[in-house]
Amino acid sequence: MIGSLTTPRPADFADVRATNLAVVLQHVREHAPCSRADIAAATGLNKATVSSLVTDLLERRLLRETGLTENRIGRPATMLVADGAGYAAVGMEVSADHLTAVALDLAGERLLSWRRSFAGGDASPGRAVAAVAGLARRALAKVTGQGRQVLGLSVAVPGLVDAAGTVRVAPSLGWRDVDLAGQLTAALHGTGAAGGDGTGPGRPAVPVRVGNDAHLAATAEHRWGAYAGTPDLAYVTVGTGVGAGIIADGRLLRGALGFTGGLGHLPLDPAGPECGCGRRGCLAAVAGVAGLLRRANPEAFTDGPPSDWEPELQEVLRRARARDRATVAALSEVGGALGHAAAILANLVNPAVVIFGGYVVPLAPWLLPAARQRLAQLALAPDAGGTELAVSTFGHDAAATGGAARILAAVDAGDLPAPVPAPG
Amino acid sequence: MIGSLTTPRPADFADVRATNLAVVLQHVREHAPCSRADIAAATGLNKATVSSLVTDLLERRLLRETGLTENRIGRPATMLVADGAGYAAVGMEVSADHLTAVALDLAGERLLSWRRSFAGGDASPGRAVAAVAGLARRALAKVTGQGRQVLGLSVAVPGLVDAAGTVRVAPSLGWRDVDLAGQLTAALHGTGAAGGDGTGPGRPAVPVRVGNDAHLAATAEHRWGAYAGTPDLAYVTVGTGVGAGIIADGRLLRGALGFTGGLGHLPLDPAGPECGCGRRGCLAAVAGVAGLLRRANPEAFTDGPPSDWEPELQEVLRRARARDRATVAALSEVGGALGHAAAILANLVNPAVVIFGGYVVPLAPWLLPAARQRLAQLALAPDAGGTELAVSTFGHDAAATGGAARILAAVDAGDLPAPVPAPG
Repeated sequence: MIGSLTTPRPADFADVRATNLAVVLQHVREHAPCSRADIAAATGLNKATVSSLVTDLLERRLLRETGLTENRIGRPATMLVADGAGYAAVGMEVSADHLTAVALDLAGERLLSWRRSFAGGDASPGRAVAAVAGLARRALAKVTGQGRQVLGLSVAVPGLVDAAGTVRVAPSLGWRDVDLAGQLTAALHGTGAAGGDGTGPGRPAVPVRVGNDAHLAATAEHRWGAYAGTPDLAYVTVGTGVGAGIIADGRLLRGALGFTGGLGHLPLDPAGPECGCGRRGCLAAVAGVAGLLRRANPEAFTDGPPSDWEPELQEVLRRARARDRATVAALSEVGGALGHAAAILANLVNPAVVIFGGYVVPLAPWLLPAARQRLAQLALAPDAGGTELAVSTFGHDAAATGGAARILAAVDAGDLPAPVPAPG
Repeated sequence: MIGSLTTPRPADFADVRATNLAVVLQHVREHAPCSRADIAAATGLNKATVSSLVTDLLERRLLRETGLTENRIGRPATMLVADGAGYAAVGMEVSADHLTAVALDLAGERLLSWRRSFAGGDASPGRAVAAVAGLARRALAKVTGQGRQVLGLSVAVPGLVDAAGTVRVAPSLGWRDVDLAGQLTAALHGTGAAGGDGTGPGRPAVPVRVGNDAHLAATAEHRWGAYAGTPDLAYVTVGTGVGAGIIADGRLLRGALGFTGGLGHLPLDPAGPECGCGRRGCLAAVAGVAGLLRRANPEAFTDGPPSDWEPELQEVLRRARARDRATVAALSEVGGALGHAAAILANLVNPAVVIFGGYVVPLAPWLLPAARQRLAQLALAPDAGGTELAVSTFGHDAAATGGAARILAAVDAGDLPAPVPAPG
C-alpha cells in the first residue's frame, strides 16, 4: 500500500457530497448562527447545493433552524445553528485505581461525568470487563433514556492496544492479550438480559472501540484543550504508569500497529532504579506516582506501597507549599526526568507543546522549572525547537473525554449518522 | 489552525480536476500501457472526463500515446504510457565529507549521479554554498541541455532545517543559522553571469528547497526503496552524525518547525562518552563513524582523527571478515547502541521497519544481530511492536535521491507543471 500522499483517490459524487456535508456542518458549528447564504458565501459552494446539503443535515438532526432571521435587504434569511443534541458519544477509562465515564452530545456538551474507585491493578481482566460493562450499561441507559442515539462507546486503557481493540500489554493493570473490545461487546450486547437499560439483545448494538489512554487524552487536548487545534502536540499522562499521545500535523500518530507513545519504559539511565517492567531507569520508575512518592514521601512506603495514592500526594503538595527542602529537591529530580522525556519528544517529533496530565498537575509549580531546564539542556534544536511545557486543564477525565472526541471526530470527517425520522 | 482531519475543505471544481488529473497520472504510471477506457473502468470516472483529463496530461507532456492499440471488439483503443521525460528534478546532498548530485526525470529514470569529495566539516558556509552552487550549475546545465525543464533543486543537509530553508544547526558541518536556500538561490540566479549553463539572469529561476538529509533519505526509501510504500517506516542515517527520518501513515513527520528525527543527540547513557555537541552518551558519539572507529580501529587515531574514513572502515570490514575478536566485539557494542535507538523509535513511533543507511551497510552482518537483540530487550511491545531492522539498498545518494523524490511527489499530489508547447 502506498501512503495517502501518493495515491489520490478520484473525487466521485458520494465523496464530494460527504465532504461538503462535513464542510457545511463544520462551518455552522464555528459560525452559528448563520444563514444558507452565509454558508454559500464562506464556502464557495453554490446556493442550490448549500440548500440541499442543509436539508440533509436538518433531516439528520445535525443542524436546526432557529426562530431568528437575519435583517438584510430582500427576503429575511432563516438562521441555522449546529444541533447534535440527539446524538451522544460515551467515553470511558479504566486505570489502575479508577473507572471513569463521560458522555457528550454531538455539539460537545457534557451529558455526564462519573468517576469511581476501582482496584484495576488487582482485578483480573474478567472482573475488570464486568465492572466496565456495568458502568457502561448505566451510562448508556441514562443517555438513551434522554432520547439520544449513542454513536459509540470508547474505552481508554493504560497500555498498548492493537487495531482490533485487543490490549496487548498494560503493565499497570498486569494485562496481556486481553480482547477488551470483544469481551465488552459480548457483555453489553451478547448475553445480557434485555431491559430498560438501553442494552441487551434486541437493542441496536453500540460499536465498542478501545484505545490507549494517552492517545485519547491527546485527542481531547487537540479538540478542546488549552492548545486545541495546535497541529503538533504531545500529551504525557503521568499516573501509575507514564505514556504519551502524539498529534502530528493534526492527526494522532498511530504507527504500524498502534503502539506509539511508549514513553514510560524508555530506558533513560542504565544505572537508574529498577522498574516493574524488568528494565532499569525507565521514566515510569522515576516519575510514575510510586517513583515520585518514594522520593518525595518515603514514609508512605513504611508498611509497603500505600493502597491509596491520593492522601500521600496531598501530603507531598502540603510539604512543597511549606517549602520543605527535601520535598522540593525530590520534585525537582522528578521534574528533571519529565524534562528528559520532553527532550526525547522534542528531538524526535518536535511538538509545539508537551502537555503533562495526571497527578503532576497540582505539583507543576515544583516540577516544571526543573523540567524546562533539563529540556533546554538536552534538546538539540535552539530554544528546544520551540517545544513548550504545560499542564493539562482537563481533570482526571481527559482520556475518557478523548474517547468521546474520537467518535465525534469521525462525524466531523464526514462519517455522518444516517437520517432518522424526527421524534414524534 | 485546526488540523486536517477536522477541517474538510469544500470539494470545488479546481480541486476535483487537480485531484482527478493526479489520479489518472498515477493510474497510468502503475498500469501502463492502458487505454482511456481502462482508466475509466478502473477509476470510476466517466469516459468524457477521462478523455478531457488525458488530453490535458498529453499537453503537459506527462502522458504520451504509444503506437500500440488494444485488440478488443469495436474501435481499437490507443494505448497510453506515462511520460515525464521532458521534466527533471535535481537532488543534492552536502555532508561533512562529500557533495552528491542526482537528477531524475518525472518517470523516476536516473539522468545523472555524481559524487565528489568535499571537506564540508572544514569549509565555511560561504565556501560550501559556492561549491554546492558550482555542482548544481553543472547538473542543471546538463539536464537543461538535454531539453528538459527542471522542476526544482533540493539540497539535503545533515542538520535541522526550518521551513524557510535555513539550516538552524548542523553539528557535523559546524553551521548555525545558515540561510542555505536564500544564498543558493542568489548564487544560482541572482548575480551569476548568464551563459550556456541554464542558470543566471534571464533564465527561469529553478525553485531551491533545503531539507534534512535523513528526512529526504526516508522519502527516497518510501518511494523507491526495498520497503517502498510501507506507510510507517524510519530511515536512520549513520555517518559523521546520526539522524532519522520518520514516515508516519505515508507522510514525512515534520513536527512544529521541521526539527524531527534528532536521534543522534538523544542521551542514551548519562555515563557514556563525551559527544562533540557537549552532552554525554549521545548515540552519535557511540555509533557515528568516529565513535565506531575509536572502538573498532583505535590505531586509526594514533596521529589524531583520520582525514579520510573510507580506508579505515575498509580495514574494520577486513578484520570483521577475518573474525578478529576485538573488532567483532566492538561492532557488537555499536550494534547495541543502534538497537537502543531503534527501540526508542519502536516505542515512540512504532515503524514497521527501521532502515539503517550510510557506513553501517557493509558492516550490517556484524551490527544487526546485536541491534536486534537490544531492540527486543528494550522495546515495550511484544515482538518489538513488529519493528524490523534492515539496511538501505541505496548507496550514498539516498538523501539526494530523496530530494528529487520530494519534487516528484508534489507532482503526484496534483501540483502539475503547466502545459507547455511541444518542442518544435
